[in-house]
Amino acid sequence: MTLEETVRRITPLDQEAMEAAEKHWNSIAKPLHSLGKLEDVVVQIAGIQGTSRVEIARKALIVLCADNGVVEEGVTQTGQEVTAQVAENFLQEKATAGILCRRTGAEIFPVDMGIYRDTCIRNCKIAYGTKNMAKEPAMTRDQAVKALETGIMLAFEKKEEGFQLLATGEMGIGNTTSSSAMASVLLNHPVEEMTGRGAGLSTAGLNKKIKTIRRAIAMHKPDREDPVDVLSKVGGFDIAGMAGVFLGGAAAKMPVVIDGFISCVAALAAIRICPTAGDYMIASHVSKEPAARLLLDSIGKEAFLTCDMCLGEGSGAVTLFPLLDMGLEVYRKMATFEENDIETYVPLS
Amino acid sequence: MTLEETVRRITPLDQEAMEAAEKHWNSIAKPLHSLGKLEDVVVQIAGIQGTSRVEIARKALIVLCADNGVVEEGVTQTGQEVTAQVAENFLQEKATAGILCRRTGAEIFPVDMGIYRDTCIRNCKIAYGTKNMAKEPAMTRDQAVKALETGIMLAFEKKEEGFQLLATGEMGIGNTTSSSAMASVLLNHPVEEMTGRGAGLSTAGLNKKIKTIRRAIAMHKPDREDPVDVLSKVGGFDIAGMAGVFLGGAAAKMPVVIDGFISCVAALAAIRICPTAGDYMIASHVSKEPAARLLLDSIGKEAFLTCDMCLGEGSGAVTLFPLLDMGLEVYRKMATFEENDIETYVPLS
Repeated sequence: MTLEETVRRITPLDQEAMEAAEKHWNSIAKPLHSLGKLEDVVVQIAGIQGTSRVEIARKALIVLCADNGVVEEGVTQTGQEVTAQVAENFLQEKATAGILCRRTGAEIFPVDMGIYRDTCIRNCKIAYGTKNMAKEPAMTRDQAVKALETGIMLAFEKKEEGFQLLATGEMGIGNTTSSSAMASVLLNHPVEEMTGRGAGLSTAGLNKKIKTIRRAIAMHKPDREDPVDVLSKVGGFDIAGMAGVFLGGAAAKMPVVIDGFISCVAALAAIRICPTAGDYMIASHVSKEPAARLLLDSIGKEAFLTCDMCLGEGSGAVTLFPLLDMGLEVYRKMATFEENDIETYVPLS
Repeated sequence: MTLEETVRRITPLDQEAMEAAEKHWNSIAKPLHSLGKLEDVVVQIAGIQGTSRVEIARKALIVLCADNGVVEEGVTQTGQEVTAQVAENFLQEKATAGILCRRTGAEIFPVDMGIYRDTCIRNCKIAYGTKNMAKEPAMTRDQAVKALETGIMLAFEKKEEGFQLLATGEMGIGNTTSSSAMASVLLNHPVEEMTGRGAGLSTAGLNKKIKTIRRAIAMHKPDREDPVDVLSKVGGFDIAGMAGVFLGGAAAKMPVVIDGFISCVAALAAIRICPTAGDYMIASHVSKEPAARLLLDSIGKEAFLTCDMCLGEGSGAVTLFPLLDMGLEVYRKMATFEENDIETYVPLS
């Protein structure tokens, strides 16, 4: 499905289903709205799935993996060979997100969106890594659209396979650099406020990263009104793929869980392409990256978890899964005031 | 075990075990400390259990249930009969915390610390509800000590039964009133800043609640330097019991998870009785009650969850359980740098 066709398919949430879900919550024998966001998210998913009989048993984490040409500028403390190593480890459950998925009963789908070498994971390669954005645009506009449409395809594929909830993750050495560049442009905020230490940069490394991003933005002048332009000039194949998963998920009427900083930048890009897509997104955690809160605010989302995580791979998104299941369990199994013979546990005001 | 004997038994955490746990985290093939608080809590539990081979499979939620005489002042929107109804529902898994415990594989132990009528749950009654603190002290000092020692006994009992982690919960109509009174005295903050709407009070009800608390404090002048005095004059049997669980858990070398506002007040009282007991506590969530953050700050704890929950019963504490399990799963199962053949994924600085 093309990007344009996908955007056309994205519609507002089903208000009737949401009202039915809210009504059910309010009939349950406990103080009104006392489960807070755990209640809200069930109502949101009801609106997404078009029914108050919410189902999220089958969960898929799609991990978009790609390399970034900008790594040659020395903006990371590890070499790009680590992208492929970790990506291949997902299948053997040697990477964190794989272990977390197994623990929560979710399935993990690593996808090679553009790792610098051939890998044994699913091949959706746009190219063998992006170009070095400090010297030329990271990718062509056609490549950005192709990466977006790959993400869209993946979301629809998971829908067809029977999954009911998606989460987004990434693996790509150098991708906090492209994310900070995109966030700076899309939010019109200074680069230094959008840039952190990634997987553990020194202060000298952080300064180099900031300078490199500034140079790339100054050189290519990405148009902040055109998210595809921003993606192609200073983004990455992983980020574009994730943005596609958000759009495809919305078009396929699936809830899509945002992970941390990088995933949130992809969510922002998707919302800039189609604002209604935001209604289908669920924030999970506040990453330790400095711009995390600002990004969540910019897309109007509140996170459930404040665990100082900054691992990527979708690890924060998967950590939310048990909470969603717990909220839904109460929604489904708990007695109503009537059944419970408690008539008095209702607010007077 | 007496309160005094319990306090004598509480010792600092095992530094060697904590260092071993931290060393193991740092050997795992992922960016250093990228799981944030999920790493810290495993290190803390290692210090509590005295071994880096942390075990938390068997989890118990102790729900202290009691009535509060102050309810006759009209500070709640529901009658005290709801305490007994919900308390008895725990056993049939009709109450929220029971459903959440089952979902996470934890066991729930409701305890009658002082419900106004006889109930079918475990009987550790101190009395049939506290006195109305707006007219006389909520309980005698002896009763407060007895409630604390009941909590201590419960913690040791769970240890003997093979449980490895405790969580605290409560059920008691009117117990946000006693909690706000205690918080105001112990933290020396104005009553109105410590008082919220509980399970859904109207604004008129909130004002009455604030006035009632002020009157009780002015009448009994609890000594903020003497937490047992504060507990007995404006506390509750449930809060005193929870404080006892925190102290007993620490003496028995078990991690004890704090729930929300009321549980946090009990934690604060326990820390005032024995500061080292705080090392054994784990914060779970930030309740929607207005004083929640201030209370967490006062005991030096950061929560993992910001879900706007305010249900009580231990529901927030139980919601943390899957996160603890997920962190521990990575700690145990993930390959080290050496095993993973990734030598480069280590910070340079």
